[in-house]
Amino acid sequence: MPNRSLQNHPFLAACRREAVRYTPVWLMRQAGRYMEDYRALRAQYGFLELCKKPDLAAEITVTPVERLKVDAAIIFADILLILEPMGVGLEYSKGDGPVIHRPVRNGKDLDDLKDFDPNKELSFVYEAVKKTRAALDDRVPLIGFAGAPFTLASYLIEGAGSRNYTHAKKLYYTAPEVWHCLLQRLSQLITKYLNCQIAAGAQAVQLFDSWAGCLTPGDYEHFVLPYTRSVIAGITPGVPVISFSTGTAGLLKHIRAAGGDVIGLDWRINLDEGWATVGHDVAVQGNLDPVALFAPPKEIRRRVADVLDRAGNRPGHIFNLGHGVLPETPVDHVIAMVEAVHELSAR
Amino acid sequence: MPNRSLQNHPFLAACRREAVRYTPVWLMRQAGRYMEDYRALRAQYGFLELCKKPDLAAEITVTPVERLKVDAAIIFADILLILEPMGVGLEYSKGDGPVIHRPVRNGKDLDDLKDFDPNKELSFVYEAVKKTRAALDDRVPLIGFAGAPFTLASYLIEGAGSRNYTHAKKLYYTAPEVWHCLLQRLSQLITKYLNCQIAAGAQAVQLFDSWAGCLTPGDYEHFVLPYTRSVIAGITPGVPVISFSTGTAGLLKHIRAAGGDVIGLDWRINLDEGWATVGHDVAVQGNLDPVALFAPPKEIRRRVADVLDRAGNRPGHIFNLGHGVLPETPVDHVIAMVEAVHELSAR
Repeated sequence: MPNRSLQNHPFLAACRREAVRYTPVWLMRQAGRYMEDYRALRAQYGFLELCKKPDLAAEITVTPVERLKVDAAIIFADILLILEPMGVGLEYSKGDGPVIHRPVRNGKDLDDLKDFDPNKELSFVYEAVKKTRAALDDRVPLIGFAGAPFTLASYLIEGAGSRNYTHAKKLYYTAPEVWHCLLQRLSQLITKYLNCQIAAGAQAVQLFDSWAGCLTPGDYEHFVLPYTRSVIAGITPGVPVISFSTGTAGLLKHIRAAGGDVIGLDWRINLDEGWATVGHDVAVQGNLDPVALFAPPKEIRRRVADVLDRAGNRPGHIFNLGHGVLPETPVDHVIAMVEAVHELSAR
Repeated sequence: MPNRSLQNHPFLAACRREAVRYTPVWLMRQAGRYMEDYRALRAQYGFLELCKKPDLAAEITVTPVERLKVDAAIIFADILLILEPMGVGLEYSKGDGPVIHRPVRNGKDLDDLKDFDPNKELSFVYEAVKKTRAALDDRVPLIGFAGAPFTLASYLIEGAGSRNYTHAKKLYYTAPEVWHCLLQRLSQLITKYLNCQIAAGAQAVQLFDSWAGCLTPGDYEHFVLPYTRSVIAGITPGVPVISFSTGTAGLLKHIRAAGGDVIGLDWRINLDEGWATVGHDVAVQGNLDPVALFAPPKEIRRRVADVLDRAGNRPGHIFNLGHGVLPETPVDHVIAMVEAVHELSAR
């Protein structure tokens, strides 16, 4: 274990399913567009530019910890950063979301991908991790993250966000050898990338398989699970891994089988049912509907209580949304949610 | 029961969970854009125009039955047609999907909705049903359909397709009385509309809750289930009701509780697991991934076999995709799928 500080913090203790004084809470995209501070920075800098300025990335990472009183920070970065050194023409275009100008659709495209060493190429991320740890000064643990092999492969293949993932699925239907090669390559890169974040100071890591919900259980098992499992198995021992996905209520047993200390549950399944499905020998994270933060604070509190009730005082629950904070979310509602989690779960 | 013909057809028998000679199969959007005949008609007529020309609607409905040899026809129409007489400015704009120019966001908007009698206003649909029945000449049963209360309400409130359904959810968070009023009004209209289709000759009906997958189980139970249940309970006795939704693996018990003779399962859950969840005392429909039709025919056949294996010869399985046929799907792959279902399931 590279770093022993904060090991008894409720967030890290909950990852290990130890009893804690209150349920730890953080939010995906807690440093996002719904925050005025962030919008002000984005008015001055492009998204990629911000990611590559470690001082600013650290500042963005720390702000919500101070503002919201959440129990973990997550490094300001993006799951697609790892694709840039592959030379596929990644561009964060305005409005439509990131685009990959040279998507991977066949064996030739795969051969054309540039090889690179995550130790060297993505040093701005590690620098940001170091600076964030210094700025946090052990107030809360810092989470590193990466996209999971399937979600990154789909982005590489589709070239943009997708509704049906037709190109990605076509690749494994028609050229499974290319698919397996690509996923293996990605999983090795992701493992190294996460371990570098850990070496720089990340105290837990989250693997985002945001798009796994489009898969049949059989396809997940055959084309995805081995690679996610290999990433998780390769993470520096002692560092908790959170396995996140969305829309995967019918896939939870397979997702559990891929490993991880904490399994993310979205709001499309009741937390108690989801936890029973993945097994009580693993921690869970979730699962408030991000849209619920548009409800009045009283209703937010009622919904927080419902999630906590379903967790039922069992050790190993980290409170979170089922997906990222939405851009128009009122900041005071987020604060009310965090307060409600702390108050209602105090033991 | 208004119509006794074809009662022993495998499709209707399977709806009643009776043993059949082979597993019946049809596809959502089997008359859609992937078919050249349909694209040719759409080059001449607008979408709404086609819906309102019963001769053409009947022709479009019958074509895939002849071309694909499927075991049911579904009337050519659209779930939003029922919203047009409400005076909300429904427009089928090119490219972006239908738009509602005056969305319902509050009590005032709700009061402004025009009242109408589905017996009178939507007669072009019933006319198309009659003409289709005549053209089908009892070769296969004809399915009528409508949008479910939640999906129609969401469209009315959002005004267009949506990613997060923030306006819809905000309405039930902040003005539940308006929500309940709207849903009740819609469910009464939908019930009448479906019964008119049945009176005109529809031999089964499908209720499309295409967007229910964005809901928490609790919200489904409280804000949706009572209305879906009321529609299903009000359908002309003896006519099978198929309850369709997608992305609802974590909601299946609630969906079952709303009623219906056949529960639609999408590809995000294995068919055997989904069937066990909804209970073996109800029929199921599904559940091939629509994208699988882009795979080579040999792979399609393997995937069809897997779905049939999971149904395991249990009476009450109707083969279908988990959602509609995608626009670029090769027609010969669809034909190969239908043939595979018939051959591999022959008893």
